[in-house]
Amino acid sequence: MTLTAANRLRGIFTPNIVPLDGRGMIHEAELRRYVDWLIDHGVHGLYPNGSTGEFTRFTPEERRRIVAIMADQTRGRVPILAGAAEANVKETIAACEYYHSLGVRAVAIVSPFYYKLSPRSVYAYFKEIGDHTPIDVTLYNIPMFASPIDVPTVQRLADECEKIVAIKDSSGDLPHMIRMIKAVRPNRPDFSFMTGWDAALMPMMLIGCDGGTNATSGVVPEITRKLYDLTLAGKLDEARELQYNLVDLFDAMLYSFDFPEGFRAALSLRGINPGVGRQPLSDDQRVELTTIARKLQCMLAAEGFTGEPVGGCPVGATPADPKLVSDIVQSVLAELKKQGVK
Amino acid sequence: MTLTAANRLRGIFTPNIVPLDGRGMIHEAELRRYVDWLIDHGVHGLYPNGSTGEFTRFTPEERRRIVAIMADQTRGRVPILAGAAEANVKETIAACEYYHSLGVRAVAIVSPFYYKLSPRSVYAYFKEIGDHTPIDVTLYNIPMFASPIDVPTVQRLADECEKIVAIKDSSGDLPHMIRMIKAVRPNRPDFSFMTGWDAALMPMMLIGCDGGTNATSGVVPEITRKLYDLTLAGKLDEARELQYNLVDLFDAMLYSFDFPEGFRAALSLRGINPGVGRQPLSDDQRVELTTIARKLQCMLAAEGFTGEPVGGCPVGATPADPKLVSDIVQSVLAELKKQGVK
Amino acid sequence: MTLTAANRLRGIFTPNIVPLDGRGMIHEAELRRYVDWLIDHGVHGLYPNGSTGEFTRFTPEERRRIVAIMADQTRGRVPILAGAAEANVKETIAACEYYHSLGVRAVAIVSPFYYKLSPRSVYAYFKEIGDHTPIDVTLYNIPMFASPIDVPTVQRLADECEKIVAIKDSSGDLPHMIRMIKAVRPNRPDFSFMTGWDAALMPMMLIGCDGGTNATSGVVPEITRKLYDLTLAGKLDEARELQYNLVDLFDAMLYSFDFPEGFRAALSLRGINPGVGRQPLSDDQRVELTTIARKLQCMLAAEGFTGEPVGGCPVGATPADPKLVSDIVQSVLAELKKQGVK
Amino acid sequence: MTLTAANRLRGIFTPNIVPLDGRGMIHEAELRRYVDWLIDHGVHGLYPNGSTGEFTRFTPEERRRIVAIMADQTRGRVPILAGAAEANVKETIAACEYYHSLGVRAVAIVSPFYYKLSPRSVYAYFKEIGDHTPIDVTLYNIPMFASPIDVPTVQRLADECEKIVAIKDSSGDLPHMIRMIKAVRPNRPDFSFMTGWDAALMPMMLIGCDGGTNATSGVVPEITRKLYDLTLAGKLDEARELQYNLVDLFDAMLYSFDFPEGFRAALSLRGINPGVGRQPLSDDQRVELTTIARKLQCMLAAEGFTGEPVGGCPVGATPADPKLVSDIVQSVLAELKKQGVK
Repeated sequence: MTLTAANRLRGIFTPNIVPLDGRGMIHEAELRRYVDWLIDHGVHGLYPNGSTGEFTRFTPEERRRIVAIMADQTRGRVPILAGAAEANVKETIAACEYYHSLGVRAVAIVSPFYYKLSPRSVYAYFKEIGDHTPIDVTLYNIPMFASPIDVPTVQRLADECEKIVAIKDSSGDLPHMIRMIKAVRPNRPDFSFMTGWDAALMPMMLIGCDGGTNATSGVVPEITRKLYDLTLAGKLDEARELQYNLVDLFDAMLYSFDFPEGFRAALSLRGINPGVGRQPLSDDQRVELTTIARKLQCMLAAEGFTGEPVGGCPVGATPADPKLVSDIVQSVLAELKKQGVK
Repeated sequence: MTLTAANRLRGIFTPNIVPLDGRGMIHEAELRRYVDWLIDHGVHGLYPNGSTGEFTRFTPEERRRIVAIMADQTRGRVPILAGAAEANVKETIAACEYYHSLGVRAVAIVSPFYYKLSPRSVYAYFKEIGDHTPIDVTLYNIPMFASPIDVPTVQRLADECEKIVAIKDSSGDLPHMIRMIKAVRPNRPDFSFMTGWDAALMPMMLIGCDGGTNATSGVVPEITRKLYDLTLAGKLDEARELQYNLVDLFDAMLYSFDFPEGFRAALSLRGINPGVGRQPLSDDQRVELTTIARKLQCMLAAEGFTGEPVGGCPVGATPADPKLVSDIVQSVLAELKKQGVK
Repeated sequence: MTLTAANRLRGIFTPNIVPLDGRGMIHEAELRRYVDWLIDHGVHGLYPNGSTGEFTRFTPEERRRIVAIMADQTRGRVPILAGAAEANVKETIAACEYYHSLGVRAVAIVSPFYYKLSPRSVYAYFKEIGDHTPIDVTLYNIPMFASPIDVPTVQRLADECEKIVAIKDSSGDLPHMIRMIKAVRPNRPDFSFMTGWDAALMPMMLIGCDGGTNATSGVVPEITRKLYDLTLAGKLDEARELQYNLVDLFDAMLYSFDFPEGFRAALSLRGINPGVGRQPLSDDQRVELTTIARKLQCMLAAEGFTGEPVGGCPVGATPADPKLVSDIVQSVLAELKKQGVK
Repeated sequence: MTLTAANRLRGIFTPNIVPLDGRGMIHEAELRRYVDWLIDHGVHGLYPNGSTGEFTRFTPEERRRIVAIMADQTRGRVPILAGAAEANVKETIAACEYYHSLGVRAVAIVSPFYYKLSPRSVYAYFKEIGDHTPIDVTLYNIPMFASPIDVPTVQRLADECEKIVAIKDSSGDLPHMIRMIKAVRPNRPDFSFMTGWDAALMPMMLIGCDGGTNATSGVVPEITRKLYDLTLAGKLDEARELQYNLVDLFDAMLYSFDFPEGFRAALSLRGINPGVGRQPLSDDQRVELTTIARKLQCMLAAEGFTGEPVGGCPVGATPADPKLVSDIVQSVLAELKKQGVK
């Protein structure tokens, strides 16, 4: 196969939440309904077992079942990128083989986490996988949660492993994306760069990204799709306006609660029932989640995606109101940063 | 049962490496031999499935098997603290039940990792476990790898959950330890505080800690035991000297390579064969590991734990030589910090 | 005066290095020559006493003299933004009054540094200045060096102080820039947003920035000006190519040595003699600087700005070679991050 | 002079706040009264122009005047360690010469700040000073505010510069202190190690420190002196109890407000009038400061240092109450950490 730019993964892939039933188990029917809903609303691909999909909170068996259900439901309508990270290289390769047998387009493998590994160890990990995988691999760089994949490591892996075909980068660091593209593309025109940082989707595309794997696309797929299309079409004024609104929604869902609870709360407002998450909530968290859900509903209502909550929304509490959002953001940013320190 | 200071977990518990065979599988015979060796060399307790034990790199089934083998081999000679963290609360409680059935003294549960959770979510997680565990629970705080457990959270859990009986803290932050002890002990005289930061073992004990779960005790159990005894006996000058030497060994094993490879290399010098780890190494890493092993051998030889390597050791390359150690430390600290910076 | 978008500061302002003579004192003649050179090469404005200008390494009297010389030499050809931060609010306001008397366009005031202040203290500091300054003020946010200025603080200051007319943000965080613009512009259409992060100049402008205060513009003003013009004209393919090259130069100058030595070395290659900086160098640093200067010369030669060094440049060692630059960047990034860890 | 352990700086040196008058200028009479009060209450030495002394908020001329006043008032009763950092090496050496002419015991020089310098640049900076200073120099390492001074740099400077005789380390990192002592003492038995982290004073002394430069000693000199004496005398149970109480006071003063406002508020409760600081406060900060002052008064009253505030103190709101302190600490730790992040 000739490797050209035409082969690249492109578009918006949705890292989907997994609906749970009343006992906290995978709610297969609702998951199937969600798959159809996402495809109907314009996403270019699906991405089970991502961070939004809480892959660490499922057992190895459950992770496989999630992909199996989604592959069966999708039936090739859109490509699937399956999160395949397991406890070690051997288990991860076995997962790659299984997902390959299901016919998914590629797997995505997060850099080793818990231990913070050096670039050489990160290289050795992906090299071992890249040499033995039967299926295309997307590197997944999310330095706030896992060992960072630095530019020389991406370049070396791209140069040495034909099966490694893309990177999803959730750092949100635009110059870093430029450095990766510059380092990799000369030798690998087929290599794809996807951003996982929704708040920078439009400018990331403008400097060379091929698309995104964006958590917001699981809640407002209409917006991310339209933003993608407008940016590609060069309609920058309209795209910028939409990007501004997406930052509001992204911030509200990401920073209002421990990830990904804000996305779960918002998803239920779109008519998909995600159920109660596996990470327990304290009593005061449950109360607070009600308030946050109400704010999210007002934001989605202002965009026309749902009705206003009972009692209505405060005047001006639209996504265009900078004070509302920055208040939410700033009040929880301290908390988020506190967690991220050391 | 009356909860008094007499009930506290005390002493040095060893977070042991799991020996692997040529195929990368658990080497049961060597693990049993290692258990005997540790007990014979004076450790007060064993701590399988800790960070040194690379718990994340084993499957759920393997983690259970490791504890089962060790419990069987120990036969009550020393207490066992079994790492029990699994994918979610339900799985973790199931592991607690299993370890309880094996007769271990307590479990240790690391704070949720990958996602960085807020204090309220950390509380809710441990509260759910504390309310449903059949076995005593040790909280495990290691903020460089997992969501931090802050002081009010420890205090609240200690006040509300009798089954939560201890915390292992690997932050190395001495004032933080003081704050926890002050917050918890008035209501819970039986609550135990263990430090996981070997480089501060003596001063941690002097300000109130009950002991440590220290990776170095898996390699030089004689030193950690003697340091514990000297400190308890108030022989501070001798203890300080030993603590200084332990810092050398700790730094060399911790900072010379991606954790816990340095400990694995040193362990093999003591006559226990840990095998090759599951995290793959690059070619240049393998070469470098040889150099590091040689340096470690010189340090252990200077302490009388092994012979010098072929070719001998450089004059003055003893643990007392500050330049040797600080060079090792500083040259790799940049790397370690780089990883931690995210 | 009606405050409209037409009033905004726009374009590329150069934070200039201050040439020093053989005794380490301000080299007035060379500074004047540098001012002319910058204006002749297309910069829209000048920015003395910025971080590139090493304002902390001059005395209060020297900082005033630098601005006085530059204002005298410029004679209104381009606007001047004068760094005015002094030891405390009273001294800073006195500096504002002096710079006002010199006829400069505005001052730029960095957030308080050394101590890391809370948002409320940062607000109180700028509010006191904003209420008593006779001259327009640009806030200067550089969180890697000084107390961060968060979005609500910028918004509140913009709403309350008409004299505060702009922010220079050197965080390089694109979504942060979006959040600031959203928060401030509805009430202050005249407020200007400038990026200090050269590696993201083009995408920053595409999401709404008015220009930049970029250290690279002091060395390659032709490139930053052309990038600005191409981006404004919507010639995105050409602009992207230029932005990629600017990242190479920026990285090489920023990360190859302690800031701003790399810029000083590059500037001397353009025919301006910056002299030896005030921060002493160790012997090995002086040797290394020679090597770095050679690499920088090859990069500038490849862009046509200077001749190749004696002995020529390695084949392929052009700015378009990703390996060269990423090697430089990565090898020193560890060091830079180490410093930033605190 | 033979350099032996007998030469070392020892004891508790107070980094004093500078009282200001109603116009924000140095209040000479109150500063003189404060000097007498500190000496009368048992401090071993004085340390003007430290971080607690807000040296960055005074002009170069004011910094000299502060030391001149204090030297004149002290008249040799206790040694003075004068903060001497100025804008650059030349200015700093001039300050050293001036302080030498005043007869102070030594100067303390903070590592370069604002720019984060590499170890080699930090070395070059201090080497240049060490080679040209007429007076003994104490290195000042405070990595949360300034470029870190790493272990090899301290060792190299100690080995090469006889005039560099001590380090004040405010990192609070106990193993780091051990590493420095191990690296330096073999060649420099006269070199002194002082901790600036009050919350670890006792354990720092137990592992080898010679004393501390502690902000709390400016407010409760009786406690820090007693803690020093008890620790030296080996009365560890009493010392530990006192160290626990000191952590309470330290946390309340350090974390309750932007540094050093909490210390200023507490000092006024001891009968010294520090006046209003130079960093402006917002209206809500002024209100909050009243509440904090009340809490501090209750803590100091519980220790017998002052009377209770009007209206009395809440029952149990003594320093021994862990909840009170940890609440204060934790609620502001998020804020502090937020500021510290990059």
